Amino acid sequence: MAERDLIERVVAGLGRRGDRLLVGPGDDAAVVRADALAVTSTDTTVLGVHLPPDGHPRVTPEVVGHRAMATALSDLAAMGVAPGEAYVALTAPPAWDDARLEGLVRGAEAVAAATGTTIAGGDVSAGPGLVVTVTVVGWAASEAELLRRDGARPGWSVGVTGVLGGSATGLALLTDPRLAGADVPAPCPPAEAEALIERYLRPTPLVALGRRLRAAGAVAAIDLSDGVATDADHLARRSRVRIDVDVDALPRQAGVDAVAAALGADAARTAAEGGEDFELLVAAPPAAREALAALGVRWVGTVHDAGGAPGARLLRDGAPRPWRGWEHGA
Amino acid sequence: MAERDLIERVVAGLGRRGDRLLVGPGDDAAVVRADALAVTSTDTTVLGVHLPPDGHPRVTPEVVGHRAMATALSDLAAMGVAPGEAYVALTAPPAWDDARLEGLVRGAEAVAAATGTTIAGGDVSAGPGLVVTVTVVGWAASEAELLRRDGARPGWSVGVTGVLGGSATGLALLTDPRLAGADVPAPCPPAEAEALIERYLRPTPLVALGRRLRAAGAVAAIDLSDGVATDADHLARRSRVRIDVDVDALPRQAGVDAVAAALGADAARTAAEGGEDFELLVAAPPAAREALAALGVRWVGTVHDAGGAPGARLLRDGAPRPWRGWEHGA
Repeated sequence: MAERDLIERVVAGLGRRGDRLLVGPGDDAAVVRADALAVTSTDTTVLGVHLPPDGHPRVTPEVVGHRAMATALSDLAAMGVAPGEAYVALTAPPAWDDARLEGLVRGAEAVAAATGTTIAGGDVSAGPGLVVTVTVVGWAASEAELLRRDGARPGWSVGVTGVLGGSATGLALLTDPRLAGADVPAPCPPAEAEALIERYLRPTPLVALGRRLRAAGAVAAIDLSDGVATDADHLARRSRVRIDVDVDALPRQAGVDAVAAALGADAARTAAEGGEDFELLVAAPPAAREALAALGVRWVGTVHDAGGAPGARLLRDGAPRPWRGWEHGA
Repeated sequence: MAERDLIERVVAGLGRRGDRLLVGPGDDAAVVRADALAVTSTDTTVLGVHLPPDGHPRVTPEVVGHRAMATALSDLAAMGVAPGEAYVALTAPPAWDDARLEGLVRGAEAVAAATGTTIAGGDVSAGPGLVVTVTVVGWAASEAELLRRDGARPGWSVGVTGVLGGSATGLALLTDPRLAGADVPAPCPPAEAEALIERYLRPTPLVALGRRLRAAGAVAAIDLSDGVATDADHLARRSRVRIDVDVDALPRQAGVDAVAAALGADAARTAAEGGEDFELLVAAPPAAREALAALGVRWVGTVHDAGGAPGARLLRDGAPRPWRGWEHGA
């Protein structure tokens, strides 16, 4: 009965947003009123893999839940659709007692509330580690509303929202032994360091922005989970084009340069390869450049005919191979 | 790149069933043509929790995939809806190399193919153990098509499909040290023992039968994952009724009695509490009894006014408390 008690307490803390949900948790399945198109993504967060191992003081249960929900919803942001429901499957080892699991769900629910998402179902199971799989469903009236990866065309521009490198830099501040000791002064002002750490721990899924970008003329998009180098490559391959990205044009979060310098690292490379910033990378025709720039998109690259070798290239001073191992299109 | 190679090989082996899928694996999310109602359930299978620990010779990767997909789809069977899509999230430790993961997906895909389900997306991640979360989506045109847990009414009958106790008995044959040794003769004929083991390893989700039961007049249903004792209790509480179940009326799979006798166990209790048979328990008004019996439903219980204490009671010779600890409604 312990599992049922936990589930009842968890369910009591969940809000219903919108009027889609006909049957929520407690039946064999949730029942939801649909629109024409269901847009669905599933994403797993493992403690010790996608987050530091259990026990790090900043990695609270709420952070785990926040991050699991946010990273799943980021895929809907990149599709340009409004989120509807989320389904949360938890696998937990004995050290994760009910109080911690409830904290995790509170963290997920806070992100759901902020994005208009209803947690409509889930599962709780024992297991050898903490694994959270979140399946999110968004709804669209037609294909024209969607941002897809395969829509980029030669002659278009590639841009990014927000600032990059923050998440990887925040992780370094949390866990790199050269930076993470209590007696080690952060190489940047404390407010910047805290913002970098929060960027890693509590990313924001850009679901409203994704829809505005689509409305303003963006055609293709991907969320920056792996980093520009890899994600631009995914977009290029799906669209069968070549994408050139000027790595020095990638906007960097405040503090990224100072932390990179302290680590002897290349800040531009952190921005290009760090990943997990969960900003959006978009491709758009020239006519949409101005409207998208007004929404905060910064233009960092160009789309070209693939010449038989689709993929992304990173450029510095106009030349490829800014560092070894970057060229996914090769 | 290893993960991407694996995903590409896996995706190449997946079939598309029906014409719902507009965007499959490879974009940020799958895009599916919807019907009026989406019916969604998520279910996790953990090796070593829901199946014996890694290394048991009968628990092949295909078995893990089969079981994960079948147990998830069983929830759609209990809702009376046709399955549409499944999303498969895998978390795997290093010992699960690509070949094993591909075997797992083959097992899941075989069940998907047998039930008209399209695996439309997923996720692969490293982790401390093998965890498979399958989210399944079925589609219905209206609420009238659905079987729900909350529909049982006093004066109705409760019935079960198929035979029970087989899965728990099969697990005992696989793992109970009194039975599982190579030098221990099975207490039942080899063909029966093999059928019991297969019942545990490769359950069949009754998705077509669930829809036929609804059409024949069943109103409420639940799938027998935890066992009649617990699942009838779930149904009773959701419907706010009392359900009395005659445990001696529960049909038992061939060999269950012989194995129970060899273990000094009570075969009727195995049928009532064993769980994981993934048959369906239904409640229906008297007018539907004949049509449902023609589909194989055997009547094993009755629905009563709850008198303020909803729940299920197991009865033997008309008296409650056939054994200690069974009475969930108490």
